Amino acid sequence: MKNIPNHFVIDVDGVLSTGQFIYDETGKVYKIFGPHDSDGLKMLKEKLTISFISADKKGFEISLKRVSDMGFNLDLVSEDEREDYLAKIGIDEVIFMGDGYYDAKCFDLVSYSIAPASARKEALESADFVTQSNAGEGAVMDACIHILEKFF
Amino acid sequence: MKNIPNHFVIDVDGVLSTGQFIYDETGKVYKIFGPHDSDGLKMLKEKLTISFISADKKGFEISLKRVSDMGFNLDLVSEDEREDYLAKIGIDEVIFMGDGYYDAKCFDLVSYSIAPASARKEALESADFVTQSNAGEGAVMDACIHILEKFF
Amino acid sequence: MKNIPNHFVIDVDGVLSTGQFIYDETGKVYKIFGPHDSDGLKMLKEKLTISFISADKKGFEISLKRVSDMGFNLDLVSEDEREDYLAKIGIDEVIFMGDGYYDAKCFDLVSYSIAPASARKEALESADFVTQSNAGEGAVMDACIHILEKFF
Amino acid sequence: MKNIPNHFVIDVDGVLSTGQFIYDETGKVYKIFGPHDSDGLKMLKEKLTISFISADKKGFEISLKRVSDMGFNLDLVSEDEREDYLAKIGIDEVIFMGDGYYDAKCFDLVSYSIAPASARKEALESADFVTQSNAGEGAVMDACIHILEKFF
Repeated sequence: MKNIPNHFVIDVDGVLSTGQFIYDETGKVYKIFGPHDSDGLKMLKEKLTISFISADKKGFEISLKRVSDMGFNLDLVSEDEREDYLAKIGIDEVIFMGDGYYDAKCFDLVSYSIAPASARKEALESADFVTQSNAGEGAVMDACIHILEKFF
Repeated sequence: MKNIPNHFVIDVDGVLSTGQFIYDETGKVYKIFGPHDSDGLKMLKEKLTISFISADKKGFEISLKRVSDMGFNLDLVSEDEREDYLAKIGIDEVIFMGDGYYDAKCFDLVSYSIAPASARKEALESADFVTQSNAGEGAVMDACIHILEKFF
Repeated sequence: MKNIPNHFVIDVDGVLSTGQFIYDETGKVYKIFGPHDSDGLKMLKEKLTISFISADKKGFEISLKRVSDMGFNLDLVSEDEREDYLAKIGIDEVIFMGDGYYDAKCFDLVSYSIAPASARKEALESADFVTQSNAGEGAVMDACIHILEKFF
Repeated sequence: MKNIPNHFVIDVDGVLSTGQFIYDETGKVYKIFGPHDSDGLKMLKEKLTISFISADKKGFEISLKRVSDMGFNLDLVSEDEREDYLAKIGIDEVIFMGDGYYDAKCFDLVSYSIAPASARKEALESADFVTQSNAGEGAVMDACIHILEKFF
């Protein structure tokens, strides 16, 4: 850990959502979000800036609706742009929560990294903290409680 | 336990439903409910008053449809209002089944508290009884059988 | 076991489906069915008569579509009518596969009873055979392979 | 293993998807696909030819949309035609990933066979490699990483 974090950046798919995509013949139509996470974000939002990112173009509007319903912002950030995005925010002051192969590559750069229990093994191995819950089953709530206890 | 309970209050999301929300671009469109619970509620409804509560405004109509299909009432009760709501019913005579961080805070107040196996750990630790089944997989059925055996 | 079975009766919800109901504001709109089961039923259908039953009125048309897509018949049979229904078929010659509290009560009456791994504990305790797979994950396929090995 | 593989053939249902079918009254309307797999296929597509097969006629358009969204081809290949299909490609140079009872029968024929952790036990027993992840939870990503490490 480098500095006291002032920003919490959360990947949507596989962290806030289960990561699964429900398809019909026209494409990606639904995503599955879980309980508890909204409660956790409410507890934490006075303490640091919370924002969401997603690399999923085709499902962006679905993710945007869920994130907006909870009162937060969502940016479309591809895997390639992720490091730059975090750098702009101030990479030493960011807590980043992600679940994927490419997320794991950012974990060494940020102030503090969190993975849901259901993340890929590359993310589980690199994260500073792994939640008890799976994505879409309260992983973000777990992360919020952990951040409150550890940093505030 | 204080009195013989005459009321069974059940939280919807994460107890009767799996707690998950299926989203499309327009918002929260579906919830997932499970088998067996309706059988259990039928067994119990002659013994005490059964009612449902939910803090989920955006998904209220979906929860209402499921609860109505089974023949029960649903009230919109936020986390803040939950203690007052239970007090009005008669807090010493209520069995309350919930799964969340804020539900756990009500568990000490009521006559008897039940959490599904899939509840948050704060609820699992405070509940008088934890069902064998997860929410949306028969947790309410488990609770009904347990109540019948314990109180009637 | 009483006679060599000539009929395989399968409950739909929680056996062929996962047992879960996806609701929107208008009611029960979707059910979730699994892989492999259709392969198993094809293997078995020359050996005995296969039929499906369901006690779910509101979701009957959904179940009917899935069962018809696989080429079989579905009857609406409530829990109360289940014993009579099985008696008419010839209760000593029926293999019955079910997952619920009331299904378990029929298990002692029929020639041979099967429950999916995800059945209620009352069904798991009474069944002659419990499949390795959960409902909606190949439990009916498991049952078909088991019936072929045991009886044919 | 016979030759260095130059083709990776992947079954859709139960490998790329969870294998489950969401039905309404009109039929099979949705399938559930998972995270990570698209990342894995991108890593691998310069190394060998990747194509998808499915025996599911009624859900073909849904599978086609998902496979097309990722930039690959999908062929409708029934269980009976599967051996011929693989033979045409050059059976000694194919890696085949499948999950079903009939897929397992092709595993001895191909150069290298892979099953997701959630495959039927017949496939798990015959596969050269079983992924750590279930279908629809990153099994194809696991397979891609394994193929890169083993063959390239």
